[in-house]
This record gives sequence, C-alpha cells and structure tokens, in this order.
Amino acid sequence: MASIAHELAKKQKEISVSEFFEKNKHILGFDSLTRALITAVKESVDNSLDACEDAGILPEVFVQVTKEDNNEYRVIVEDNGPGIVKKQVPNVFGRLLYGSRFHTRAQRRGQQGIGVSAVVMYAQITTGRPAKVKSKISDEDVAHECELVMDTKKNRSQTVREDFVIWDKEHGTRLEVNLKGKYVQGKQSIFEYLKGVAIVNPHAKITFIPPDGGTIVFERATEEMPPPTREVKPHPEGVELGELLNMAKYTEAKKMTSFLNTEFSRISLRVAREILDIAEISHDQRPSRMTLDQAGNIIEAVNKVKIMSPETDCLSPIGEGLIRKSLKNVLGETRASFYAPPITREPKVFGGNPFVVEVGIVYGGQLNKEDPVQIYRFANRVPLMYQQGACATTQGIENVDWRRYGLEQRGGKGIPYGPAIILVHVASTKIPFTSESKEAVANVPEIREEIELALKACARKLKTHLNKAERKSKTRVKFEIVQDIIPMIAQKSAKIVGKPVPDIAGTITKIMNVVWVEDEVTYDKKKHHVSVKLYNYTPKTQKLHVHMVIPFDKVDEKSLAIAPSEVRDGTKVSWDIKKIASTEVFELAFDLKGVNRGEYDDNEVFVSGIDPASIIGADILPGDWDLEHITITEDKAEEASENGEIDYDEGAEVIDDEE
Amino acid sequence: MASIAHELAKKQKEISVSEFFEKNKHILGFDSLTRALITAVKESVDNSLDACEDAGILPEVFVQVTKEDNNEYRVIVEDNGPGIVKKQVPNVFGRLLYGSRFHTRAQRRGQQGIGVSAVVMYAQITTGRPAKVKSKISDEDVAHECELVMDTKKNRSQTVREDFVIWDKEHGTRLEVNLKGKYVQGKQSIFEYLKGVAIVNPHAKITFIPPDGGTIVFERATEEMPPPTREVKPHPEGVELGELLNMAKYTEAKKMTSFLNTEFSRISLRVAREILDIAEISHDQRPSRMTLDQAGNIIEAVNKVKIMSPETDCLSPIGEGLIRKSLKNVLGETRASFYAPPITREPKVFGGNPFVVEVGIVYGGQLNKEDPVQIYRFANRVPLMYQQGACATTQGIENVDWRRYGLEQRGGKGIPYGPAIILVHVASTKIPFTSESKEAVANVPEIREEIELALKACARKLKTHLNKAERKSKTRVKFEIVQDIIPMIAQKSAKIVGKPVPDIAGTITKIMNVVWVEDEVTYDKKKHHVSVKLYNYTPKTQKLHVHMVIPFDKVDEKSLAIAPSEVRDGTKVSWDIKKIASTEVFELAFDLKGVNRGEYDDNEVFVSGIDPASIIGADILPGDWDLEHITITEDKAEEASENGEIDYDEGAEVIDDEE
Repeated sequence: MASIAHELAKKQKEISVSEFFEKNKHILGFDSLTRALITAVKESVDNSLDACEDAGILPEVFVQVTKEDNNEYRVIVEDNGPGIVKKQVPNVFGRLLYGSRFHTRAQRRGQQGIGVSAVVMYAQITTGRPAKVKSKISDEDVAHECELVMDTKKNRSQTVREDFVIWDKEHGTRLEVNLKGKYVQGKQSIFEYLKGVAIVNPHAKITFIPPDGGTIVFERATEEMPPPTREVKPHPEGVELGELLNMAKYTEAKKMTSFLNTEFSRISLRVAREILDIAEISHDQRPSRMTLDQAGNIIEAVNKVKIMSPETDCLSPIGEGLIRKSLKNVLGETRASFYAPPITREPKVFGGNPFVVEVGIVYGGQLNKEDPVQIYRFANRVPLMYQQGACATTQGIENVDWRRYGLEQRGGKGIPYGPAIILVHVASTKIPFTSESKEAVANVPEIREEIELALKACARKLKTHLNKAERKSKTRVKFEIVQDIIPMIAQKSAKIVGKPVPDIAGTITKIMNVVWVEDEVTYDKKKHHVSVKLYNYTPKTQKLHVHMVIPFDKVDEKSLAIAPSEVRDGTKVSWDIKKIASTEVFELAFDLKGVNRGEYDDNEVFVSGIDPASIIGADILPGDWDLEHITITEDKAEEASENGEIDYDEGAEVIDDEE
Repeated sequence: MASIAHELAKKQKEISVSEFFEKNKHILGFDSLTRALITAVKESVDNSLDACEDAGILPEVFVQVTKEDNNEYRVIVEDNGPGIVKKQVPNVFGRLLYGSRFHTRAQRRGQQGIGVSAVVMYAQITTGRPAKVKSKISDEDVAHECELVMDTKKNRSQTVREDFVIWDKEHGTRLEVNLKGKYVQGKQSIFEYLKGVAIVNPHAKITFIPPDGGTIVFERATEEMPPPTREVKPHPEGVELGELLNMAKYTEAKKMTSFLNTEFSRISLRVAREILDIAEISHDQRPSRMTLDQAGNIIEAVNKVKIMSPETDCLSPIGEGLIRKSLKNVLGETRASFYAPPITREPKVFGGNPFVVEVGIVYGGQLNKEDPVQIYRFANRVPLMYQQGACATTQGIENVDWRRYGLEQRGGKGIPYGPAIILVHVASTKIPFTSESKEAVANVPEIREEIELALKACARKLKTHLNKAERKSKTRVKFEIVQDIIPMIAQKSAKIVGKPVPDIAGTITKIMNVVWVEDEVTYDKKKHHVSVKLYNYTPKTQKLHVHMVIPFDKVDEKSLAIAPSEVRDGTKVSWDIKKIASTEVFELAFDLKGVNRGEYDDNEVFVSGIDPASIIGADILPGDWDLEHITITEDKAEEASENGEIDYDEGAEVIDDEE
C-alpha cells in the first residue's frame, strides 16, 4: 500500500492552464466543427465591440470567412477600435487568463481573458498555422503586424514574424486565423449570431462576407453610443465570508468604517456605523484584525440593515423601447399580432454583482402554433447560441406555468408550445456563465428568480391581450346570434298573435347588457390615429372613466376633442365620460405625432367607475395605476394574485362564465 | 486614441487560475447552496473511489453531513484508500490544476486536478474555515493530520496546523470541511447521488449519515473489483494536426515509423509504413523535422488506412448484465413490466480518446404515463445530477423519433413522454464535460451519434415488446369476437333453415387462419420455467422452426423434451417443429437452472419456415440471427429499415392491417 501511495505521489504534478484548455477545448466552445467556427467569430467580435466601447468609438466591425481547404476556413475580424500597443499583442492573443477586465466590476462582453486567445490556440491545434494580428493606434503612422504561435506547455506566445506596415486606417485591430470548422446556415449560424448582435447593439455597424460570397451589412440603427457603464465596487449583498476576510486583509483602509465605506458600493459612513454597531465591532478597529466571528457578524448585520439597491449606471440594459423596436425590425416577416410591452426589471444583486433582467414576448402572426416557443437569449448584449437547455433563462421559462398565460404546456412545466417568441436578456457586471464558452447563464437562484418575475410580468400582458381578444370574439358571436334570432322571434311571434312586429332595439340591449369597448390604432401620414369607441348596449344611460397609457406630449392637441381629467407622469391619462345614452356610441379619438411607426401599435385601455361585469373589451383599472406599470409592485400583484387575493385576469373572465 | 490604447495596456494582467475559479465558482458546481453541498460530497467521493481503484482496494466510503449553524454544514468523507503521502496533501487538497491523471489516458472519475481542491476553496470562501485532512499510508504507524487554508492569489495552500495522530485504520484518507450549503431531499440530493453511485459501482460499500440522523448503508453487491483499466496511447483517429506536430516535437523516437508506432495505439510498424507511404514521407525521417504539409498528409493517410478499433481494456463499461440487474435492484418498487435488454456498444474514438456508450430502458409498471420519461445519466461510473439539458445524452434522446418506438413525443423531437426510464452511460479515457463541474457531456458529434445508435438499438427492443403486446391484445379481442359470434350465427342459421347446428371448429380456424404463439416465464423452486405454446388456428397442418435466445448451458436437460436442431454461440437455439395438426396445440417447454431470479424474465422467440402473415405472437427470424443480436450489424438494420429496405417491425404489423 505504501508503495502505491508513494507511486501515486510521484505522478502528481501541476497542469498549465493552457494545457488544461487545450485538452478541454470543448469547454471553450470548440466541441464540434460547426460550433468552432461560430465561436471563433463570436469571441473576436465580442472583443472588438468591447474595445470600441471602452474607447467611446462607434463600432464598425468587419467579418470575413473564406473556405481554404477541406474543413479549413480563414476567419478575419477587423475593427475600428483604439488598437493594441505592440508589446501587449502577444499577451492579448496568445495567453489564456490574461486580460484587463477580470479584476473590475463592469458590464463587458469579455471578462476572463480567455476568449480570443482560445481562438488562436484552437486554430493552431487544428491547422498548425500561426495567427496574424495587425493593429494600429492613432498616434502612430504605421500599423504593427505580427504572426504568433502559442506554446501551450508554457501558456505564452511566440512572435514568429513581425513588421511595420502601412494601414489605410486611423486605428483598429485585425485578426486572421485559419482553423478547422464547418460553415452552415440556419438557426445556429454566423449569420444568426451577427443578426442577434445587431438586434442588441444598434450602435454597431457590422459587415459580413460569408464563404459563399456576397456582402451582408447590418447598418447602424442609431448614432448614439449606449451610455458608458461605470466600474463599481461590490455591493454588500451576497458577499461571502471568506471574500470579506480577504478584502479586509488587503484593504488600504485603516478603520472598519472606512473599509466598509470604500470597498463596497452603497455603504455610506452612516450605514457602515450601523452595520458595525449591530455586529458589535468597534468603528476604529483595524480591518486586518477582523476575526472569523466578526466577519460572520458583519454578514448577518448586512442582511438586517437597509441598503440601497445597486447603482444602475454600472449596467447597460437594452431598454424596453429598444427591445420592442429590435424585435419588430428583425421579425417583420412574421407579422406577429402582438408585441407584449417588454419588461426591464430594477437591478438586483447576486454575490455582490448588480444585474438586471429584461424580457419581451412576441405572439401570433406566422409563428407556428404547433412548435415550441422560440427563445432568444442574450447576456451583456451578446446573443447566446448554444446550450439553451443549461441556461437559467430557459430554466426560468420552464418553471413558469404558461397555461395561466395562454400558452400550451404539458403539466405546466417545460418549454411551452405556441406561436410565440420569448426574449430574455441578462446584463451584469459579472455574468455567471456555466462554462468558459459563455453560452449559458448558471442557475444562480437570485438571477433565476428575477427571470421568472420578469417573464410573469410580461406574460400577464400577453394574457390580458389574449383574454381581450377571446372575450371580444365570444361577445361578437353572441351579438351575431342575438341580432339574427331576436328579430326572427319577434316576427314569428307577431305573426302568431296577429300583431305588428315590435321595436326590438331595447330588447337587444337588455339581453346584451354590456358596454362594449373597441379600440384601434392606424398609421397614416406620419401620424398614429387612436380611436376608442364605447357602445352602450345596456338599457340605461352610462357614465365611466377611461384611462390610457400614452406618450401625452406626443398627442396632437388639435386632434383631441375631449380634454383629459388627469395626466400623471406624462403617460397615464384619464378622461371622464359623463353620459352615453342607451344604444348610443361614444368615440374618444386623437392623433399621435412624432412617434416612429411601430413604436405605438397597441392601446392599453382601462375603465373605472362602472360595474366590472358590464364592461367588454377593456380591463377594469386595477385599484392603482402602479399595479400595471411599476415593476416593483408587479411582484406584489403576482403574489397577491397567486394567493387568490386579487386576480384581475380571472375577475374579467367571470363575465364569460355568466353568459 | 493612443492614450486609450496605452491606458488599456496598463490594465492588462495575468489572472491566477485559482482567482479565476474563485470568481467563477458556479463553473465548478457551486452555483446554489443546494448544489454546493452535493458537489462537495460528489467531488470527495469520486476522489475516494478513484484512489481505492488505483490501489486495487475494494472501496469503503463513509460520508457524513452535519448541520452546524444557519446555512453552514460540515461534510466528512472518509475512505480506505492507499492514503496520501504527507508532502502531497497540500497540493492534492489546496491547489487547483494539480493532479496525477491529467497527462494519462485512462478511464477515471477525476482527471483535471480541480475537484476536491475546489471544495476546499469553496468551503473557505463561504465559511472562512480551513479544511482538515487526515491520511495514513500502510507502512506508517500513525496518521498525519493537518489543517489547510488556500491562498487563491497564489494557488497554493498553507498548512496552519499539523500533527501525527493515532488512527485505528490500516490506511485511508479523511477530509472534513465546513461550507455554506442547503440540505434537501428529492431527485437532486446527496442520497440520490449516492444511490446512483451504488448502482454503477456494485463493488463499493457506502455509508451515509445525513444531517437529520440515521445511517444509510449501500452494501457491496459484489466482492469483485471491476477489471482494472489500462492507460493507453492516443488512438490516431481524430488527432488534430497541431497535436501531431507537437507530439513529433517532443517524442523520443528517432524515426517516423517508430514515432507513429510508439506514440499511438493501434499503429503497428506495418500500419506506420503504410501511412507514411500514402503520405509520401520517408520512413526514416526524424519526427522533429515533420513539416506542416507532412502532418496534414499523415492525418489524411490515417483516414485512408484501415486501423483497428481502440483496445477495450482501457475502458470499464458497466456491462449489459449489470445495468439490467442494477436497474431491477433500484427500481423494484416501480414493478416495471419490461426491462429492455441493455445495449453496450463497441468502443469508438473521438479526438484520439476511446469511449463506449451503454443504454438501458425500463417500461411500464407504476411509472407515470403522463410524465416525461426519466433520464438516468452516468459518465465513467459517476451519476450526473445537474445540467440535464446541456448533456449530449439528453440531446441524443431528444433527437430520436420515439413515436417510432412506442413513446409519445410531440413533433418527433424533444424528451418523450411515457412510463419509461432511459439510462445512458458514457465511459471514456476522457469525458468531454461541458464545464469543470462535470455534470454534462459536451455535444461531441462522435459521442452523440453513438448515443443515438445505442438508444435506437435499445428502443427497437422496446418496440418489439410493445408490438407483441399490442398484437396479442388485438388478436385476443378478435378471438373473443369470433368465438362468441360464429356459434350464435350457426345456431340462428340452423334454426332458420331448420337443420342441426353444424360443427364450427373448422370455420373458426378458417376465419382466424393464424398460428398463435404464446410464451411465458415463471419462477419457482429456484428454476425459471419456460413455455412456448403454438396454437394452430389454420385449417391445415403446419410445420415451422422456433428460435430462442437462451443461456443453453443453463437448460435443465431432464426438462427438455424436444432436442434442438441447432445451438449457436451457446445462446441461439433452434428447434424443428415438424407437425402441428389443424386446431391442435404444441408446447415447447424447459427449465433454466442456476440463473438468478430476474436475470431471465422475457423470452425472445422467433419463428421461420412459415408464411409471416400467419404468425401471431412471435417475430419472424430476420434473415440472420446477427440482425438482432450483434450490435455492429444493428446499425445496418437501422439504416436499412430507415431506407425502407427491411422493416421487420413494420412487416409484422401488416398482419394487423389485414384484419
């Protein structure tokens, strides 16, 4: 036995990080020829976009893939970024775990210092050829061009050739590699990846020359850079005890109060003192003397003290407006019947890292009813193409009971079926990917919970739309029957009793006994025309309040015949409708000017001040405007609805049951 | 711009591998509290089992989890392995990417030198407490005990306390760590993980003391170690060009022939010469002088030359018998109606690594018809608990059209529904996991293809079973109707025409016109009693051959009334049945002795020498015995069946159509 232990001991040795990844190239996204080619483009483009944004440059990225031989392709990615100084080129492109962003907390596409070096390594493993890098920084006249090979035993690269060359470009970087791959079309392709990039990066111009020729250009949709994201300190929520001890060991702060105040975000000196008091630690203690018990006490105290949510300027969500616009741009051909208003949640924290979740849903049109819903996943503005099943976004979707929201789902679990696309974007100063290939978000409970809340909030809007559509179609059928049959009964009866046919308008309204709301948006001559018609099919005169969510500053004043009774937050507009006589119709109409086509195409109409049972075609305003429109209370609504306390969707359906 | 490039350059720095994993602990399986606790147990137990097997010791592993405080648990894992020499303890438990198995090609649970050090790191991050390790090797009197802390900035551990202690144990290792976690029951739990370990490691004894008390013992089911697996050289198939160049650079061989012969498996000197001739390279060339073009030529030549499949003694599949037995042991309570004979495929190769795929299917009983099938995944005898959706095994299952094999599946894609469990085991000298948490097999095309072929082969057996059951039930209904109605018609007709009721036995056989085969296995007095009854419901005398797959050496000679006409491979047994008169029944019966209960519980009966259309209850022998029983030709059968050339399943169904 002893000899075995000694023998085993002899075999023990260190593994270099590049040897590790060389042997585990599938972890980096190189598990098949098809994926390898996409990964190579993806890592290079991500790098280019990050470099441009770091330098405040509107990105212009050029991608070319050419077929060389058999399974060998040449991938070229060129950007107009700030360039890379000569001595860093071998590190950036030929050394794994080397980078500028690992030790910072900021929303970036690349963080690990692995991606593009992995491309160079994979290229070399599969074709034996060096990578070619050209880079120019703007205060130099010439570009520097070199060829690199990687020594995976040492995790260092070697420059096999270098030169200064003229480059007709202000600044930028160009990478060329030859690698084994397979070029395909379809759902998982370079084209789809670049299209996804364009959706969530409207400030980037991307040109793509595929191996079969032709040039595809994704034009810039905006000349504005996304607001720059700030680097932040860790948020105290979810910081681990061991990390806290480590931070205390290395801090430059001399006192506990300043330690907490300077090393964390959202801890003011006042909050720091409060935490220390609860933890029973002297304000002046040296951080390096922090004991294990004290660290535990601080962690507990943090949970008891009210700490502000993380700053939002460290995150760059796509935004509700842009999600909608992007989806419409890309999905024009599906002629979807409904784009649910997207949801961008408030930032939350996991393990000290702020993050934000966004969700959008598209429904109907030419999307196939028989297929599972399509899932569009994004993390830090990067489309995720592989490992859908492993992703917290997918798991979030699978955990929602979509039957409640109008989609088919066997047993209320799993990916739902129906004519829908679900988009989920997670933005964070640190995306916890399940592996270095960065294709799936790990199942971190804090993130999954936010995803589920965002999905439910967006799904409720889908459900409201579907309910409305269903109620309208049911009531329409009822109308048709009533309007057909009542006159026939009247005639027949009149004939039998030998009397004249009676006036039956009143009878129809008595039988219907509803106020029918029909709203419409049309677009013409650069204006959106909004019309809300209220049909009083009750035997009595009715009065009610109508509420709409509209950009009120865009309403063409001349077009607005009835002044609103109230306008809140510039978007929540209410009208008092004082009188609609029985069997009469009332129209509320106005135009919107200066709103781009497609940015307003579905009215949100609510009513109040009327018996909910007599309204068809609009929802009753749920107690408080906020219930529908402020994200934070939406959870409460969800909760309440799940506890059976409020259920405005269901409430509305009661009407159907009474028919 | 230049200043930006320079500024960015200043931020570039190296990232230590332990800092990387500290920040990406979710990659190592620590993404939630529940999973963290399971991962800690899993990595430690895997290590223990590997250590025991390396030393040829029957493993005895003790696992205890106690609740300390809030979310803090203490995990203790102790084994009877060979122990670890003192100076290696800090490396094995406190240094990432350090191990003995990375540079070898052999089937092991652990390979990366990450797992157990990651547990120590996670424990320290979350609780700030050191890990305690006790180890004893058999030629020393005392055990060495120490406490370790890890410096993640340096990827080294520091011993904070050490001692020699008396340990009442010959040899072994014990690890104790405190970590933040959450203990749960259910499908993803420590208990289920250990149960899975017991299924595929019947030579191990595992004791588990959960936090809520009690002791669970998984007793050893066999005293035999699995055959030791040999370390192998890479198989030439799938070796990458860059790797080949690298190997040529570092080899000690002086000539190309000996380089190919000594550095690869399955390249004899003859094959080496053949390859070099095709590649037009001199046999005597120094390997270090190999050019890029030459390397490319060798890779091409390898694909043209016939090279033997990899050695099987480097792999340790569970085996068809054991899979069946293990499933029965564990699933006794589901009273499944059918255990499809498991499939162990022939070894194949990906990227130079031999691997083998095994599949088993369980059907019916108390398994829920309405649920998705349950999937049991294993890799190198380790149960996979998480990331099911990312796993090549799951993707293989999703790609099979299960509707062809009798399970429900919407659109012929995705996880099928039905009362079934599907077990998939992948064994390899290198499992390509999607991440360091080792929970999902990467989607490597070679592996996924083998998984699909194995699934289809096993699914065909399920389908045969279901077809047989369905045909029997259909024919039974027909029998009942015919037997009820014909006599009634006879009586009625006789009455009308005023004649006596005719004998209708012949009429019934004319209408049925089938030979009905009914087989049965019962177990009693330590014997399996097998009976195959052949009912001749045709108007003519019949003769036919009956073929069965049985362990012929286990047949009790005294019980066998009819001698077989042929016995092939000791299991393929044929009988000539010379004469069965119309309306008569013939019984073929025998006993099996020395077969454990449950190891023979479903007959495979085939017939030949008779019109296929007149047989019910057995399949026609498909041309060649091999078609059903040798794996390699099964693919061809599958292929042929997909091309519509042969379709024995469908062929049999023609009978139903004719009813």
